[in-house]
Amino acid sequence: ISQQNLQTVTLIPGDGIGPEISSAVMKIFEAAKAPIQWEERNVTAIKGPGGRWMIPPDAKESMDKSKIGLKGPLKTPIAAGHPSMNLLLRKTFDLYANVRPCVSIEGYKTPYTDVNLVTIRENTEGEYSGIEHVIVDGVVQSIKLITENASRRIAEYAFEYARNNQRASVTAVHKANIMRMSDGLFLRKCREVAENFKDIKFTEMYLDTVCLNMVQDPTQFDVLVMPNLYGDILSDLCAGLIGGLGVTPSGNIGANGVAIFESVHGTAPDIAGLDLANPTALLLSAVMMLRHMGLHGYGKKIETACFDTIRDKKVLTKDLGGNSKCSEFTAEICRRVQDLD
Amino acid sequence: ISQQNLQTVTLIPGDGIGPEISSAVMKIFEAAKAPIQWEERNVTAIKGPGGRWMIPPDAKESMDKSKIGLKGPLKTPIAAGHPSMNLLLRKTFDLYANVRPCVSIEGYKTPYTDVNLVTIRENTEGEYSGIEHVIVDGVVQSIKLITENASRRIAEYAFEYARNNQRASVTAVHKANIMRMSDGLFLRKCREVAENFKDIKFTEMYLDTVCLNMVQDPTQFDVLVMPNLYGDILSDLCAGLIGGLGVTPSGNIGANGVAIFESVHGTAPDIAGLDLANPTALLLSAVMMLRHMGLHGYGKKIETACFDTIRDKKVLTKDLGGNSKCSEFTAEICRRVQDLD
Ligand SMILES: CC(C)[C@H](C(=O)O)[C@@H](O)C(=O)O
Ligand SMILES: CC(C)[C@H](C(=O)O)[C@@H](O)C(=O)O
Repeated sequence: ISQQNLQTVTLIPGDGIGPEISSAVMKIFEAAKAPIQWEERNVTAIKGPGGRWMIPPDAKESMDKSKIGLKGPLKTPIAAGHPSMNLLLRKTFDLYANVRPCVSIEGYKTPYTDVNLVTIRENTEGEYSGIEHVIVDGVVQSIKLITENASRRIAEYAFEYARNNQRASVTAVHKANIMRMSDGLFLRKCREVAENFKDIKFTEMYLDTVCLNMVQDPTQFDVLVMPNLYGDILSDLCAGLIGGLGVTPSGNIGANGVAIFESVHGTAPDIAGLDLANPTALLLSAVMMLRHMGLHGYGKKIETACFDTIRDKKVLTKDLGGNSKCSEFTAEICRRVQDLD
Repeated sequence: ISQQNLQTVTLIPGDGIGPEISSAVMKIFEAAKAPIQWEERNVTAIKGPGGRWMIPPDAKESMDKSKIGLKGPLKTPIAAGHPSMNLLLRKTFDLYANVRPCVSIEGYKTPYTDVNLVTIRENTEGEYSGIEHVIVDGVVQSIKLITENASRRIAEYAFEYARNNQRASVTAVHKANIMRMSDGLFLRKCREVAENFKDIKFTEMYLDTVCLNMVQDPTQFDVLVMPNLYGDILSDLCAGLIGGLGVTPSGNIGANGVAIFESVHGTAPDIAGLDLANPTALLLSAVMMLRHMGLHGYGKKIETACFDTIRDKKVLTKDLGGNSKCSEFTAEICRRVQDLD
């Protein structure tokens, strides 16, 4: 691949098993000849002017230039007042949509088959506003903030996603029966946007009802769009249906093409450095990234090699039910990627 | 049973299929010779002095006297500003704990077996405060209210419930990583109360993690305690694991023995009056009620007859996979109740 056709991606390897699974992904990308050039950066927050936590300037600059990040798991430092790194990244780059496709993986058995849905979570406001007060001793309030702009923006993202990904329906998830004004506003914006997407079926459902129906028959759902906290809950629930965070990709999308793709599992410090980690979630996130960058062919090839490896059951990491090392699993995917050429 | 040994229960048959399933429960109680005398009341809200919605005085008086209610599904009238009947009842009688045991039913197949957990939901505050404002055009806030008193009260209820019901552990469900002050307060109270219940194991878990773990292996959970909205979500999710709201009992508990037990499914207007409804959720709620009243023997007998009928699979309503009428299913349970004498 000639140097000038390479696209730069900011790589944030992360902590714990992060470096191992990142290097697994890089190996597989190399085997696939994906035209990506990695720019590695550490994002651990530092205290900036005025004592505000911020990500280091060279990480910020890299992302500002490349627009695209791939990120492993980050531990949140326990220093007093240190923000969640995930929240800080979402905020710094205004990554307003969290997108998680949950698709059953053939060969990886869970109580469910044929799950094929996408949760789209508003990533910037709602219950995550961070505004809280003590009213009087023993009485606390937290503020859930819902705005027209953020609601419209996420609704538009969801419908556009549905259209671009040949999906038939969008379900707005809410509790507007209880939070009439805030969830009511969110829901109203979804309804308005739905008017402009007559090709996509629009439905609305209470969050509790979604949860109940989800565990009874997840195949009834397609694209789901919802405020921040509901998305936090539902995206994890849905990940559980297909095998957990170890196999679920995630993307955080901002305006103008900016996006960070990430595995959402933990740093697994107990197995870090032991060549036992499972790179699947980060790899599938990297596949989402390739598609986001328009590199569909490379995405398909890598995804196929990964799913074939899992379906075949011969070379699997421990958490996937096998007893291979991370490096063996990675090599097997590389081999298959090359075979697909 | 001599008249003077009867305990009075306020019966709120409810709407849609409510009257049918209520009369099924009454028949089964009669067959079991349960020492209950029913006082039937309509609770549909009326406008009281000052235009405030309230439940009718004769229903309020009945509950104040009997302390115990059994309630079928209620539709919320669509009159503008009419409150949710469920919320109004919780408020009127300060029913601060919503308790839902979710136990796998032998013979009723779902993707899960051996589920045996209880969700205990704070029922009076949190996201259900009803306080919302428009800040400026297009910006809305809803207030989540957490108090020390309500948090301590529900934590104490959960631990006492665990102790009285031979349960080994209590898990506090929260998002104190995000809502540090409000969920933080809730969590702190749970920790404090846990100190007084050294015989019960105490754990804490993020709501999203609970959801993920729940669908992967619900058998790891025992008693779960949580703020209002999280309880709304988790209780429905867990009901889904064991077969849905048609088979899940529920109790709303207040101070000094006051309690209302209820089926939490809908009014099913499409099958109302057709003798097709499934009375199981209301019946199992009535069994919870008997236990709450100290009538364990009657509770056990009715529960056994109900579960035996389901396990036997010969006489089941349609939603349970059979083709019997509500009256046939009820008669079968009555027959078994009498056989158990
Ligand atoms: C780490 C935490 C702040 C975060 C959240 O609550 O949003 C996580 O659960 C997620 O879903 O990314
Ligand atoms: C009917 C509705 C107000 C209620 C709630 O949201 O609490 C219901 O979902 C419940 O769980 O009882």
